[in-house]
Amino acid sequence: MPGDAAPPSSWLKVIGLGPGAGALRTPEASAALAEATDIIGYGPYVARVPLLPGQRRHGTDNRQELERARHALSLAAEGARVAVVSSGDAGVFAMASAVFEALESGPEAWRALDIAVLPGLSAMFAAAARLGAPLGHDFCAISLSDNLKPWALVERRLQAAAEAGFVVALYNPISRARPWQLGRAFEILRGILPGTVPVAFATAVSRPDEALGIQPLAEADPARADMRTLVLVGTAQSRLISRGRGQRPWLYAPRSASSP
Amino acid sequence: MPGDAAPPSSWLKVIGLGPGAGALRTPEASAALAEATDIIGYGPYVARVPLLPGQRRHGTDNRQELERARHALSLAAEGARVAVVSSGDAGVFAMASAVFEALESGPEAWRALDIAVLPGLSAMFAAAARLGAPLGHDFCAISLSDNLKPWALVERRLQAAAEAGFVVALYNPISRARPWQLGRAFEILRGILPGTVPVAFATAVSRPDEALGIQPLAEADPARADMRTLVLVGTAQSRLISRGRGQRPWLYAPRSASSP
Repeated sequence: MPGDAAPPSSWLKVIGLGPGAGALRTPEASAALAEATDIIGYGPYVARVPLLPGQRRHGTDNRQELERARHALSLAAEGARVAVVSSGDAGVFAMASAVFEALESGPEAWRALDIAVLPGLSAMFAAAARLGAPLGHDFCAISLSDNLKPWALVERRLQAAAEAGFVVALYNPISRARPWQLGRAFEILRGILPGTVPVAFATAVSRPDEALGIQPLAEADPARADMRTLVLVGTAQSRLISRGRGQRPWLYAPRSASSP
Repeated sequence: MPGDAAPPSSWLKVIGLGPGAGALRTPEASAALAEATDIIGYGPYVARVPLLPGQRRHGTDNRQELERARHALSLAAEGARVAVVSSGDAGVFAMASAVFEALESGPEAWRALDIAVLPGLSAMFAAAARLGAPLGHDFCAISLSDNLKPWALVERRLQAAAEAGFVVALYNPISRARPWQLGRAFEILRGILPGTVPVAFATAVSRPDEALGIQPLAEADPARADMRTLVLVGTAQSRLISRGRGQRPWLYAPRSASSP
C-alpha cells in the first residue's frame, strides 16, 4: 500500500548477526529475529538465522544490496516485521548504509516507518580478541573493495593510515573478482612500515572452520586470505608474546605510543 | 604460588561488557561472568555486573590499569577464575592491552595461565546504530587522551584521517584532567573539512541517561561531551535524512565514495 502509513505493528530492523557463533550474537538481535515475519539478506547470512515456523526468508546474491534494501522497505510498508541481516555489525561495510540510501531516494511514506539499526560484533573485534589485543591504540578500518570507490582512494587511505601509525583492519581483502588488491595493499604498506610488522589473517572467526595466522609484513602472503578473512596490519610498536606448548603467540599493541 | 603452574580450573578472561544495556552484552560474556570467582575492573564497570553469591569484587580507580592487570594475573595464578571487565570492547582503549603488558613483563609462570579475551560491542558501533549508519565507509578510532602518547601524535592522526576522508570516532574526548583537547581537535578538523560536516555526540548509549545530538562541525561545541561521550565526525559525503514528528534525522555515509 504505497502512500499509506504502515500499520503500527510493522517495522524494519537492520541487524548485525556478529561474526558467526551464537554466543557472540547480542540478545537484542536474537529477540528481534524471533519476532520478525521476514528475514532478508545475503543467502549465507540468512542461513545462519534459526528458522521459525511461518517466517519468510529472502536470501539474495551478495551484490544486490540496494535492490534488497528497497525490497525490505516495501515489505515493511506493507505491514511486515522485516529483519535485514548482515554478518558482523550492520553498519560496517554492510546493509545499514544501503537501507538508508534506499530510504532517502524512496517514497516519502517510507520515512514514517519504524526503522532501527541493531549493532553487532564486528569481525575486527572478534578477530582482535582471538589474537590478543592488536588494536590497543588508534586504529582504522578500510575496505579493499573498489566496487564503490576508486582504487586510488584506497591507496591514499592505506598510505595515510600507515604513515600516521594506525593499526589497519582490512575488510573485503580478496575475492574472485578482486584478486590483486590485497597484494598491492601489502606492497604499499611495505614501502612505509618495517618488514617485521606483524600481519594477522583471521578467517571465519568463531565458526567451526576458524583459522588464524600471523606473518611478518615482509613475508605476508595474500593467498592466506579469502572472502571470509579479516586482515589486521600492526605497527612498528606491535608486540608478540610467546606462549610455548605449540600455541600461537599473543599479539598486542601497548597502550603507550610514541611517534610512528 | 608464584612459579607453580596454576590449577587447571583457573583462568583469566578479559571481558567487554558492551556499552551498558544487558541486551547488548554477548551471551559468551554473561556466561563467563557467571562462572568467575573474582570480578576486577574500574569501579563503575564492576558495578554493572550482576552480583552472585560468593563472588569477590575488586573495583579500582580508572588510572591504575597496569596495577589492576598484575593483580588479576596473580589472582589467576593462585587458582581463581578472574573476570577483568571493561566497558564496550576490552581491546579498544581498555584493559586487554594492559593485561598483555603485565603478562609480558611478569613472571614466566603467568604465560601458562588460561587467558582469553572475550570481545564486546564497542561504544562506536552502538552509537553508530542509534544514529543511522554514519560509519558506512572507511573509518578510524582515535583516543584523545594524551596520558600515554604525545598530543602531537594525536594531532597528526586527526589531520591524516580527515585529509584521507575517514569518518573519525573520538574516544576519551574530555575529562576534568583533559579539558581542552576536544576543542583543539575540532579546530584542526575545521581547517581541513567543510563546516557543514555533521558531528554526532553520543552519550551513555543504551543506558537510561542516553543522549544523542548532531551539530555541524562549524558549530560543534566541546561542552556537549563528557567522559561517557563518543564523538563521531563525518565526512563531506555524510548525509542527513529528515524524519519529521520531532525525531532526530538519520545520519549515514553512502556506500560509494569519491576522493575526499
